[in-house]
Amino acid sequence: MKSFVTVPENSDFPIQNLPYGVFSTKEDSRHRLGVAIGEHVLDLGAVKSFYPVQFHDALTSTVLNPLMSLGYEAWSEVRRITQNLLLEGSELHKNTNLQSTALVPLSSVQMHLPANIGDYTDFYSSIHHATNVGIMFRGKDNALMPNWKHLPVGYHGRASSVVVSGAPIRRPFGQTLPVDGADPVFGPCRLFDFELEMAFFVGGSPTELGERVTTEEAAKRVFGFVLMNDWSARDIQKWEYVPLGPFTAKNLGTTISPWVVPVAALEPYKVENFPQEPQPFPYLRHEQKFNFDIKLEVDIKPAKGASTTVCRSNYKNLYWTALQQIAHHTVTGCNLNPGDLMASGTISGDASDSFGSMLELSWKGTKQVQLLGGESRKFLQDNDEVVIRGHCQNDDVRIGFGTCSGVVLPAKPFE
Amino acid sequence: MKSFVTVPENSDFPIQNLPYGVFSTKEDSRHRLGVAIGEHVLDLGAVKSFYPVQFHDALTSTVLNPLMSLGYEAWSEVRRITQNLLLEGSELHKNTNLQSTALVPLSSVQMHLPANIGDYTDFYSSIHHATNVGIMFRGKDNALMPNWKHLPVGYHGRASSVVVSGAPIRRPFGQTLPVDGADPVFGPCRLFDFELEMAFFVGGSPTELGERVTTEEAAKRVFGFVLMNDWSARDIQKWEYVPLGPFTAKNLGTTISPWVVPVAALEPYKVENFPQEPQPFPYLRHEQKFNFDIKLEVDIKPAKGASTTVCRSNYKNLYWTALQQIAHHTVTGCNLNPGDLMASGTISGDASDSFGSMLELSWKGTKQVQLLGGESRKFLQDNDEVVIRGHCQNDDVRIGFGTCSGVVLPAKPFE
Repeated sequence: MKSFVTVPENSDFPIQNLPYGVFSTKEDSRHRLGVAIGEHVLDLGAVKSFYPVQFHDALTSTVLNPLMSLGYEAWSEVRRITQNLLLEGSELHKNTNLQSTALVPLSSVQMHLPANIGDYTDFYSSIHHATNVGIMFRGKDNALMPNWKHLPVGYHGRASSVVVSGAPIRRPFGQTLPVDGADPVFGPCRLFDFELEMAFFVGGSPTELGERVTTEEAAKRVFGFVLMNDWSARDIQKWEYVPLGPFTAKNLGTTISPWVVPVAALEPYKVENFPQEPQPFPYLRHEQKFNFDIKLEVDIKPAKGASTTVCRSNYKNLYWTALQQIAHHTVTGCNLNPGDLMASGTISGDASDSFGSMLELSWKGTKQVQLLGGESRKFLQDNDEVVIRGHCQNDDVRIGFGTCSGVVLPAKPFE
Repeated sequence: MKSFVTVPENSDFPIQNLPYGVFSTKEDSRHRLGVAIGEHVLDLGAVKSFYPVQFHDALTSTVLNPLMSLGYEAWSEVRRITQNLLLEGSELHKNTNLQSTALVPLSSVQMHLPANIGDYTDFYSSIHHATNVGIMFRGKDNALMPNWKHLPVGYHGRASSVVVSGAPIRRPFGQTLPVDGADPVFGPCRLFDFELEMAFFVGGSPTELGERVTTEEAAKRVFGFVLMNDWSARDIQKWEYVPLGPFTAKNLGTTISPWVVPVAALEPYKVENFPQEPQPFPYLRHEQKFNFDIKLEVDIKPAKGASTTVCRSNYKNLYWTALQQIAHHTVTGCNLNPGDLMASGTISGDASDSFGSMLELSWKGTKQVQLLGGESRKFLQDNDEVVIRGHCQNDDVRIGFGTCSGVVLPAKPFE
C-alpha cells in the first residue's frame, strides 16, 4: 500500500496509520479535522465530497466528537475512503488543485485538543507501577492493595485541565507535610513529576445512565489512542490524597498528544492480554486480544543541554485492558459520552529503566537519574521539557503517535 | 416588595428568590431559561426585550452557562430587571398578552439540567460527617485525617452522571468484600445510600490553566446553589476506594434540584463562618461571611406508605466555605469554567437526627431508622423515594430550593 503523498522513512504517519487530529493554520484560524500523512495533514473538510453525505457534518466539525459518536462501522468506512483517497492513482492524486488546498504541511499547522472531553478518567492498570508505588509506601509484603487484581482501580480526573502537547505546565504551589506528625507547609511543589501514560477516546452514541457496557460492546467503543503525560505533584498528593484520592496534585494539567491513532491502525500490533490470576469476575472477562505492542519512551531535556531518554516502556505492560476498563467503569451504571477520555495510569515495565515516572526512576528520590551532559535529576526541575513518544513497529510498517511534550514553568509567586 | 404574580404562603419562590432553571413544556419542547415565581415560571426568552441587548444571547440559550459566564455584575443587573418586571405596576403587569406567553404554570413544565456541567467536584466539608465516618471506620482517636482541618478535602466526580430531580436511580451491581481477607463477591449493592448535599455552580469567564483564584475573587464566582443527593453504594465504595478514592460507587448517579438559587437571594441568611482552628494558610483565609442558614431535610417515602423526615440538617454546619473550596481547587492552577459544579459533601449536624446519610443515621447499620407506618430502614430499599428539601426563613421571607428527589429502582439482573 503506497500513498502518493511522500512519507519519509521512519515517519510516524504512513498510510497504514491515518490518525485524526484538529488543526488550524496561521492563514485560517478555524479548527478543522485532519488526518496526518507523512509530513502533511489531509484537511477532511476539504475532501468531504468523497465521503457519504451523512458523514459531512462530522467531517466539517471543529472537534472529533461527532465523528466519534457515529460509531464503529462509520469509522471503518471513513478510514477506508481516506486510505483510498491517499493511494497512488486516486481521485485526489489526479487533482493537483484540490491537493493544494486539502494537503497542508504539518510544519505549518497548530494542533488543538482533538475533542471536547466530557469526562476524563485515570486508571491505575500497570502492575509494575502499582507494585513499585506500593513497595515504596507500604513495603514489599503489602505492595498491591487487596482489590487491585480484582478490578481496574481508577478515579475521576479533571477534564478542564487536559491540554494538548506543547502547552507549558506551571510548577504548582500547594500544601505538603515535611515530616509525619509535623505541621504542613505551603510553598512550591518540590517533587514535580511526569507520568508516562496512554489514553483512549470513547466513541459510539451516548449510553444511558444505568446501562452497563459489556467487554464485547466495549471493543466497538474505543475510538483511538493518544500519548499522555499526567503531571503529578508528588509531595502535594501525599498530603492531600487520604481518604478521597488525588485532587489538586493532578488537576494542574494533563498533556495529551494531538493525533488520535485509530484502533484499526493498531490491529497488526495486537499481542496476548496480560495473564490475570485470579481470574476476574465474568463481567470483566474477554477472549478477544486487546493488548498492543506499543514502544514508549520518555525524554527529559533541560533548558540548556541535550535530551536524555530516561524511560523505555511498553503499553503491553498493562494488566487490565481498555475493554475491562470500560466494562468496570459502567458496571454500576455510569453513562458514557463520545469524547470521554480514559487513561491507563503510569505504564511501567519490570526493568528499572522502564519505570514511567521519576518517583520510580529515582526510587522516591533515593537515587539520581543521570542525564547526558553531566546533569542529574531526582524529580523535574524548572524549564525541563518532558517529551513522550510512542510507536509500533513490525517488519513492514511503523505506526507512530507523534509527541506529547511540555515544559515545566517556574512556580508563580504569590503577590 | 410584592409581585403581581400570586405567591402562595409558604411558597419556595417569592419575588425575593427568583431562582434560575431550564424548562420545556409539552407544547414546546425547546429547552428555555426560566425564573420561578410563585406557581409560575417566567420565560426569560419571552421577555428578553426588557433586558440590555448584550444579554439576549444568554437569555435565549438552552442552558445557563452563557448567563453564568457573563459574571457577577451582569447577574446583578439581570436580577434587578427581573425583579422589577415582576413587581406590581410593571410593564409586564400591564401587558396581559405578554403575560399569557411569558408566565407558564409550574405544573405544566418539565425541568432539565440547568447547565452543561463541564466538571463536577465533590468536597467533604462537614466536620460532623467527616468525624462520624472517621469514628466508624478508624475509631474515635483517629476520626479526622491529619489533613482535614488544613485543606478542604475533595475529589473529582463524574459530570456525565449528574441528573436532574425526578430521574430514577438504579441500584447498581458491583464488587464488595463480605469479610476482610475473604474473596470479593459480585452482586447487587446491599448498602445503598443517599447523601444530603448542596452544590454551587461556578460562574464568570473561564480561568486559565495555571491561574489561582483567591477567596476574594471567588466571592464573585459563585453563581448560585442547588440541593444535591450524591447517591452512594457504601459496600462497593468500601472495597474499591483504596488508594485513589470513590469511583463506581458514586458515578451511578448524582441528583440535583432544578432551580439554581442566586447568592443574592441568600444574602439575608448569611451567618458567621464556621470557626476554624488551626487558622488555615493565608490562601484559604477570608473575612467575608460566606456561610448560610439553610434548613435542610431528607424524607424517605417507601413505595407503599407515608413519607418520613429522617434527617434535619443545615448548610451552616459546613466547616469550609465555598470561597475556600474554590481557592483550594485552583491553588495548584486548575482552570475553572462557567457551569462547573462543586458540591459540599454530606452535610451532617452534631445531633443524631441531623446526620445526612443512612450510613450515619443507622450508624453503619447497627440500628434501625424508624419510618412512619411501622417500617424501618438501615439503608435504602428498592422503590424508596428520597426527597431533599431546603429553605431559608426569617421573619419576613422564605427562600426555598424546591425539591431534589429520586426513586431507587431495583437492580437490573445480568442476562
